[in-house]
Formats: sequence, structure tokens, C-alpha cells
Amino acid sequence: MPTFALKLSYDGKPFCGFARQPGMLTVQGELEHALEMLYRRPVQTVCAGRTDSGVHALGQVVSFDLTEDEAGIRRDDALMRSLNALTHDRMSVCEVLHPQEGFSARFDAKAREYRYFIANIPYPPLVMNDFSWQITSPLDIGAMREGASYLIGEHDFKSFCMAVSAAGKPTCRNVISIDIDPVEVMGQQLICIKVVGSSFLHSMVRTIVGTLVAVGRGRRKPEWVGEVLEARRREAAGENAPAQGLIFWEVRY
Amino acid sequence: MPTFALKLSYDGKPFCGFARQPGMLTVQGELEHALEMLYRRPVQTVCAGRTDSGVHALGQVVSFDLTEDEAGIRRDDALMRSLNALTHDRMSVCEVLHPQEGFSARFDAKAREYRYFIANIPYPPLVMNDFSWQITSPLDIGAMREGASYLIGEHDFKSFCMAVSAAGKPTCRNVISIDIDPVEVMGQQLICIKVVGSSFLHSMVRTIVGTLVAVGRGRRKPEWVGEVLEARRREAAGENAPAQGLIFWEVRY
Repeated sequence: MPTFALKLSYDGKPFCGFARQPGMLTVQGELEHALEMLYRRPVQTVCAGRTDSGVHALGQVVSFDLTEDEAGIRRDDALMRSLNALTHDRMSVCEVLHPQEGFSARFDAKAREYRYFIANIPYPPLVMNDFSWQITSPLDIGAMREGASYLIGEHDFKSFCMAVSAAGKPTCRNVISIDIDPVEVMGQQLICIKVVGSSFLHSMVRTIVGTLVAVGRGRRKPEWVGEVLEARRREAAGENAPAQGLIFWEVRY
Repeated sequence: MPTFALKLSYDGKPFCGFARQPGMLTVQGELEHALEMLYRRPVQTVCAGRTDSGVHALGQVVSFDLTEDEAGIRRDDALMRSLNALTHDRMSVCEVLHPQEGFSARFDAKAREYRYFIANIPYPPLVMNDFSWQITSPLDIGAMREGASYLIGEHDFKSFCMAVSAAGKPTCRNVISIDIDPVEVMGQQLICIKVVGSSFLHSMVRTIVGTLVAVGRGRRKPEWVGEVLEARRREAAGENAPAQGLIFWEVRY
């Protein structure tokens, strides 16, 4: 059974998230429907990270198995073209990969990178309007970096997980790095929060960003982030940052 | 009469171009309507470059005169906030400037820079989807650069001007530079065509881009661009590149 992997990008706006749900427009639903059309049987896919409704992806990875016969039907560029033609126009198959047999986009991932973009200017940004969170009051990047330092390493991130998803499940995760830097995108200054970790809990990145923004606004001290972590209760953390600023950037295998 | 200037950015999509037209949504119409609300009289504005329907701007400049009394009513940040609140949400006043009295955004401009973005990949780009022209067949950048070299300097650009606008008007212009380079925008490769000139004819940049793309696709030789220039007829040039890939980037005074 040859294993295939696809690199996907998508605009989160039109989709009710990645994961297939009956009667809803989802990225997985679109992809599996297209695969079913091409191979005339249901094809199950596994993804590197299930993004929520409204969250974008540049480097989502999805894996699935085909039979030898199915794998031989069409070349990679033809498969890519067919999948792009059969799926929603705000999602794209950017690459067809041939990992070793049995590869899982989910379980073989070593690290995942998310980037969150904040437009910290008094007017809506031009190109990044649909891919950023606009915050007009000035943010203190130094304080945000200090707050972020409490989150690096292996911790119980229960405070940063959507409560309903955390119930009865392990909530320890390893955050490898959080970098907060000004970046220029198409002539305009934004703030990029780059979060790399082995894996993430449900809405963890958005809760980290919302918590750091409370520090950046000066409403909380940087040390508060450490207290939030220790509390192990979702209510201790800051608000969820809006989905539209978040991009699932890359998966490392 | 103190002269004011505003730096504007806008998404060209919702607007019927920059220039005011009765009954149409235009950038100038929105801006002048907002100025009239603030100063309770019609305020005439002059812009650095009238962009066509669908063309974006990052650094459009607009100038207008106020009386001493009017100029004293509100501070720059309050003026910016009010104008942004009163105008369409896909246009933004990014800066309030105080040039010398009598300054004209149009006549004092020394050079104008436009950037055109091409997504030369087999799938729609993520963030740049609404700000680029997608061309799936590979473009030869070297050939496009060679073609562009014929356009540098002072020439009669009649072939590159919308015919109806060229009738009976001077069509000599000075193109200072055309740079064609791969650029990375939010993790994806695009081609940027940067055109700088003292001033431009109607739809000149889009005709230059469309002509260079014909060369990049291999349909024409680079020398053909020189022949197009000499022909002094719009029909000699390539197709108009779509408006959505073009951004009026900057004005130099």
C-alpha cells in the first residue's frame, strides 16, 4: 500500500475548520470527496493538525494510502491538478509527496509551527486584512517576550486548552520556541508571533496569543503568564485570539 | 490656506477606481464626502495618480487646502480617526502630512512607483490571492527583463496607453526603472514587477505588464517590445494585465 502525502494551503474563512463534519464545508470533507471521485471508493485521510473554523494553513500535511493500482493511475502533477479542480477554490494542494509506507502526517510529525499576525496600527492593513488581528492600542513587545518565556519547555498547558477538550485527557505539551518580532508584509508593519511545539492542545496557540496580548497591552505583568500556567484552569488565561490571525505554517518530520 | 496631504491605502476591489463619479463608489468620492461632513463645505482633493477600477494602493497621496480655522479644529490623529470612521472600510488614511502651502500631490510628484504581482504557481496563492495575477504556465524572467530594457528612458508610450485617453494628448513619458524579481510573500513565491516613472499614461503599467508577460510565456521575443514601442498604436501591444495584481506603491516628492 503506497502512502501518499499532500501539502495543503487554505484560507480558513469559508471553512468550518479542517475536520470532516456531516453537512458542513470543511477542508477534509472537500479533500476526501475529491479523492473518492478520483478513486471511486472512500479514502481516509490523516492530517498533521486539525485547525479550527477560520484558521488558515500554508503547510498543512495530509496522508492517505492507495493500492499499487490506484497509485499508478496518474502522475503527481495530474493528481494535484485534479484535486485542485475538484475542491473549493480557497484551498490548494501545493505538493504531492511520497513518504515511506505507513507514514502518518499526524504521528510522524516532530514539530509544528504556527504563526499569528497582529496588525498593531490604527487602520486596517491592506493585504493582511483577512490574515491578522487588528489591535489599535500599542503593544509592548518586550513584555510579551518576557511573558512568553514562562511557556517554553514541557508543561501542563491545561489553562491554555479549550476546557471541553481537556476533560480527562493528557494536557502536557512541549513548546520549543515562541518568537515575537515585527515583520514587514507588503509594505506594512505587523507583529508576528511564531510558536513551535511538538504538538498542541485544542485552541492552545490562540489562547497563548490572547494571554500574551493582555501582557502587551499592559493589563497584566509578564509574571502573570507563569501564574496562568500554574493555575491549570482555562479561566485563568486570557481571551482566545481571533482565528483569522492564525496560520498553520509548517510541519517538521 | 494651510495645505494638507494624506497617505492612503485601499483595496481596489470594491471601488470603481479612485476618481469621483456621480452615483459610484470611488475612493475620492468617499474621501471628499467625509471631508465635507467634517468641514461642512465641499473640499476638493488632488491625487498623485488616478487608479483604475480594481487597482490597489498602498501609498496614494492626496492633497487639499483648509482655512486656518479649519486646520486648527482637530489634531492629526483625530482627523485620521474621523476620516477612517467616515469612509469605506477597505480604504484607510495611514498618515496626515503637512507639506508647504500650495503643495499639489499631483504636480509636485517627482516619481511614482507601481508594483505588479504575479503568482506563477499551479494553484491560487494564499494571502496574495486578491492581489496578484495567477499565471500557471512558467514565465521566463530573463526574457521579460530583456524585453523591459527597451522601455527604460524617455519614449512615446502611445502603444501602452488606452487609445481613447491618448487621443490628441502628449504621450511621451519617462520610465526610470523596471525591476522583475522573485519575491517571497507570506511563505509563497511570487514575481514582482516594479515600475518607476515620472508619471504614467492611462493603463500604461498594466499594458507594460501584459506585454512583458507575452514575452515571459515565450509567445514573443524580447525585441518585440521595442517594436511595440515604435508602432505607437495600442493594438501593437499585449493585453492589459488584470487590475487586481497592481498596487500603486509609493510617490516620491
